[in-house]
Amino acid sequence: MKAKLDCIPCIFNQAFRAAQNATNDKSLIRKVLNEAGGKVKDIDLNLTPPEAALPIYRLIDKITGNSNPYGDIKKEHIRRALSLYPVMKKRVSLSKDPLKEAVKISIIGNAIDLGSTLNEIDIEKEFEDAEEKDFILRDFESFKQKLFREKEILYIADNAGETVFDRPLVELLSDMGKSVLYAVKEYPIINDATREDAELSGINTKIISTGSGIAGTVLQSCSEEFLNVFKRARFIISKGQGNYETLSNVPAPIFFLFKVKCKPISIDTRFPIGSMLLLKSSSYTD
Amino acid sequence: MKAKLDCIPCIFNQAFRAAQNATNDKSLIRKVLNEAGGKVKDIDLNLTPPEAALPIYRLIDKITGNSNPYGDIKKEHIRRALSLYPVMKKRVSLSKDPLKEAVKISIIGNAIDLGSTLNEIDIEKEFEDAEEKDFILRDFESFKQKLFREKEILYIADNAGETVFDRPLVELLSDMGKSVLYAVKEYPIINDATREDAELSGINTKIISTGSGIAGTVLQSCSEEFLNVFKRARFIISKGQGNYETLSNVPAPIFFLFKVKCKPISIDTRFPIGSMLLLKSSSYTD
Repeated sequence: MKAKLDCIPCIFNQAFRAAQNATNDKSLIRKVLNEAGGKVKDIDLNLTPPEAALPIYRLIDKITGNSNPYGDIKKEHIRRALSLYPVMKKRVSLSKDPLKEAVKISIIGNAIDLGSTLNEIDIEKEFEDAEEKDFILRDFESFKQKLFREKEILYIADNAGETVFDRPLVELLSDMGKSVLYAVKEYPIINDATREDAELSGINTKIISTGSGIAGTVLQSCSEEFLNVFKRARFIISKGQGNYETLSNVPAPIFFLFKVKCKPISIDTRFPIGSMLLLKSSSYTD
Repeated sequence: MKAKLDCIPCIFNQAFRAAQNATNDKSLIRKVLNEAGGKVKDIDLNLTPPEAALPIYRLIDKITGNSNPYGDIKKEHIRRALSLYPVMKKRVSLSKDPLKEAVKISIIGNAIDLGSTLNEIDIEKEFEDAEEKDFILRDFESFKQKLFREKEILYIADNAGETVFDRPLVELLSDMGKSVLYAVKEYPIINDATREDAELSGINTKIISTGSGIAGTVLQSCSEEFLNVFKRARFIISKGQGNYETLSNVPAPIFFLFKVKCKPISIDTRFPIGSMLLLKSSSYTD
């Protein structure tokens, strides 16, 4: 999907938050704001939101010299999510429908998104307070049927910490005899998971890199190696808003698992903000 | 108080909201964002936040031709607040401390602030759910004592709709035999109350204009007539964040009634966001 007018102030706010995390030097933060402001006129709304935001994120690195402003926060989110992991596993094992429960937990984890939300995410509260009414697993039946037919799954991860919430689903899929490739970013961007984050989270399936350092999955920015995996994939799980934004128009057998966190996504999906969705790609038919 | 770095993205967000309310023409909204972005580097953090924001608000008018983007919303807020007015009056009349109750209601009304918050203010919820713990009427005793000594009160209003929440206090003061001058903006800015808004709200004391169209009370922008009233005032009630931001360093006998809605104000006052305050000016001593 293309970026919307709403994305412009959101990108500007992201620049401020990232700059604050990148440096304590107020003059550098001011410089980021000034230059980001000057670049507003160049933000291209024909691009997807992560692509539109990229020149602004590059400014943070250029001005502050910090290419990983959320590094410490990512580690903290993983640590906190790991402390919830035993409860997640218990919930799945006690559930009448473990697959559905693992899917839900994975979607809850998508609350840990520092692109569209603030630094202060109450991970424990998100986990405990997720309300049944907010889960809209519209294409769960299709997901389940397809799952029984396929052996290999490409699981495109989103954020650090969310990676721990992915584990019950990844592990259940492995237990079902599936081969899961868990794809992460090559370079840090916002709080997106890299290989290090996935490993710290205890992901114990094969981890691959998309080759990219842009939020979401912008295929033009991915490595040839990843593109080969992507093209031959017959079952793709895509986590988070960024991946939805960049892959929703790509013809591929994708199931999107994410929480709706802003108005443009709410308009595009036609589900209210706060909805926790499982949607199949519009191009995918059983 | 001076504007802070946090004010910059806030001002940019305000520009977007105001532009959306000023026009449906997306190309004009984009033009506002582009020009506001270009002006970020000129935002002067040595000014108070309302002064720092003024060049951006002027852009909305210049680009969209709409000098009162919140006109309809202001009327709607007044209408909704008026429907709560009988309950406000009842609360005051049933209270053991009617003055304190009227002060509290007046502060609750300050939630209706489209500068620091979004368009969608749940006025009814703000009124019903205001929690006792959030009221920090630190200088209420001083307020009460001073009140008994003074006959004339300058009441500097803030926002349309909030004006209705001011009425129980204004009316109680009148009943106590005080002469209340209710000061509003000369020109529309954000959702600040003008004479028309005060009249629509049923304010039945003498309404005067500050002569200004800047949020808060920037004395340099006020009329000579208002400045004469201000200078000779011995008891001033100042409503809202904007008035606090612009008057907190002015030596005058001011009692500030407002809700803390952002980080810079929380830091300046040392009270958490959400606090509903009655503070006397630091320059004022009994």
